[in-house]
Amino acid sequence: MPELRKDPVTGRWVIISTERQKRPNTFQVQPAEALGRDHCPFCAGRESLTPPEVLAYRHNGSSPNGPGWDLRVVPNKFPALKVEGGLEREGEGMFDRMNGVGAHEVIIETPDHEKTLASMSEAEIERVLYAFRDRIQDLKRDRRFRYILIFKNHGAAAGATLEHTHSQLIALPIVPDFVREEIDGARRHFTAKERCVFCDIIRQEVSAGTRVILESADLVALAPYAPRFPFETWLLPRHHSSRFEEAPRHEYDGLARALKSVLMRMDRTLERPAYNLIVHTSPFTDETADYYHWHIEVIPKLTKIAGFEWGTGFYINPTAPEEAARVLRDARI
Amino acid sequence: MPELRKDPVTGRWVIISTERQKRPNTFQVQPAEALGRDHCPFCAGRESLTPPEVLAYRHNGSSPNGPGWDLRVVPNKFPALKVEGGLEREGEGMFDRMNGVGAHEVIIETPDHEKTLASMSEAEIERVLYAFRDRIQDLKRDRRFRYILIFKNHGAAAGATLEHTHSQLIALPIVPDFVREEIDGARRHFTAKERCVFCDIIRQEVSAGTRVILESADLVALAPYAPRFPFETWLLPRHHSSRFEEAPRHEYDGLARALKSVLMRMDRTLERPAYNLIVHTSPFTDETADYYHWHIEVIPKLTKIAGFEWGTGFYINPTAPEEAARVLRDARI
Repeated sequence: MPELRKDPVTGRWVIISTERQKRPNTFQVQPAEALGRDHCPFCAGRESLTPPEVLAYRHNGSSPNGPGWDLRVVPNKFPALKVEGGLEREGEGMFDRMNGVGAHEVIIETPDHEKTLASMSEAEIERVLYAFRDRIQDLKRDRRFRYILIFKNHGAAAGATLEHTHSQLIALPIVPDFVREEIDGARRHFTAKERCVFCDIIRQEVSAGTRVILESADLVALAPYAPRFPFETWLLPRHHSSRFEEAPRHEYDGLARALKSVLMRMDRTLERPAYNLIVHTSPFTDETADYYHWHIEVIPKLTKIAGFEWGTGFYINPTAPEEAARVLRDARI
Repeated sequence: MPELRKDPVTGRWVIISTERQKRPNTFQVQPAEALGRDHCPFCAGRESLTPPEVLAYRHNGSSPNGPGWDLRVVPNKFPALKVEGGLEREGEGMFDRMNGVGAHEVIIETPDHEKTLASMSEAEIERVLYAFRDRIQDLKRDRRFRYILIFKNHGAAAGATLEHTHSQLIALPIVPDFVREEIDGARRHFTAKERCVFCDIIRQEVSAGTRVILESADLVALAPYAPRFPFETWLLPRHHSSRFEEAPRHEYDGLARALKSVLMRMDRTLERPAYNLIVHTSPFTDETADYYHWHIEVIPKLTKIAGFEWGTGFYINPTAPEEAARVLRDARI
């Protein structure tokens, strides 16, 4: 059984998930080549190679766990958390632990092995966003969970072990540290000013323009003022809302277009980089409606320079966000 | 001029240091091969290839910036921060910045290109620790600085761009986020219990034994209860003290021996891994004497599995610390 353990100094929870060691390539120092198309379990016709689907968008009449789908969501074959059982919170002397209860699912974004999120159509990307929403709506009914982390590792350098384009979802009984920091910071800002800090950022950035990558009716994509990583990019809805899964339909539409544009700009200017994409949305149990603002962060994995940040959480970024925004804004796509 | 910028949501400071882009290999996706011995600026006889030394332990009679040294400290040729000038704190609308004032130095641990910290003698490692102490003692007199970060990137996968064994020092006008979190957590524990949380950890771990890697009169090396990374290792002095630079001589001696043993054990069992080493010590301006406890963290860079932690600060660790401690404890060195 995986375990959640809390660091007694910082209060940070980590997942100790020893069963994932059964995966190939564990402890390999070089990035493993991602599994290619010949043995790809995510391609149409290979549905038996994954656990049974929990959601699929299918053509009329096609049967579950066979071909005929546009998008499938399946449990991760090597889950970091197990969906069965109770949390069984307990102390071990001064330490705190609970069972690693949670869901770990894979969103297979398309049956086509050759596509990437950047090369998919806007309608296909929108379908991926609907799948995120549908899975959150379903899983948040489970009272054991407090947060759903949705992320995408694109490319081996960003941690992907399969080439076929996919995202992942982890439903957690705790709120991760980085979410807690963001929520706490946004609450502090609201307490001081009675305004959402992200709304303030959007206003100032749109007015200044120097860090804006693109603007649409619904969304703004920008290089944040204090980015941890080169070409770190945030996509924020203009309309204030704390929960991704409650966005109106036209925002998913706008987000799909903006996301495709940002990813194509990165592909064009940064030589098709590996990247991580993370959906930042409110925990279920927090009353964040006033002060939190859902958004998406895209972080290309460009450089090894900053190796020590891994251990320290301290960031040196060699690219000014004004320069990154200019490069992405001016990209010809 | 490099800049320090504060994220308006989380309060995290980052260094935007665009001049480092002049370094070779910037934005290279694959780990750069570290610069080998043919062009190594850290080897004896090539002193003119580095900026003039700020500290050297030399044989009797040898002149500065020539051969005849056991250890040299020089300014980083591609510094993330600049030592000249004032902080000039200012706001940009809602954002906060200051000049990237600080020191960025390189500790060249030995003139011998072939050695590693693990293969150096205990006396040589102790000399490295003295250099850390001497540079902290010197730089803390500069009132612009609040923290000195000492770290080592060993191996290209851990961010080293030069093969020749060295550590780095960054003197900062701010306290980095990860230090602040640790300090705050330790203070909370002290406020609740009037005991140091690290002293409590040492007591419980030594008593349980399952996560202890080695014990000596002065030091304990252990796998922490909630490690972020496989084989993450902490070296803690038994004697409570918040400042590395105030340790008594016998503790540096004990630390050198414990560190060599831990690194040799990692080399033996993990196939000479790349690693990051970080000295955790108190900020200058905080009154942490009661509740903080200096220590050293060593984090081997073993796996790409967890790529998304880069962006999220959320950790999934596939190796239980009890297993890591057992493997390192049982290693034959």
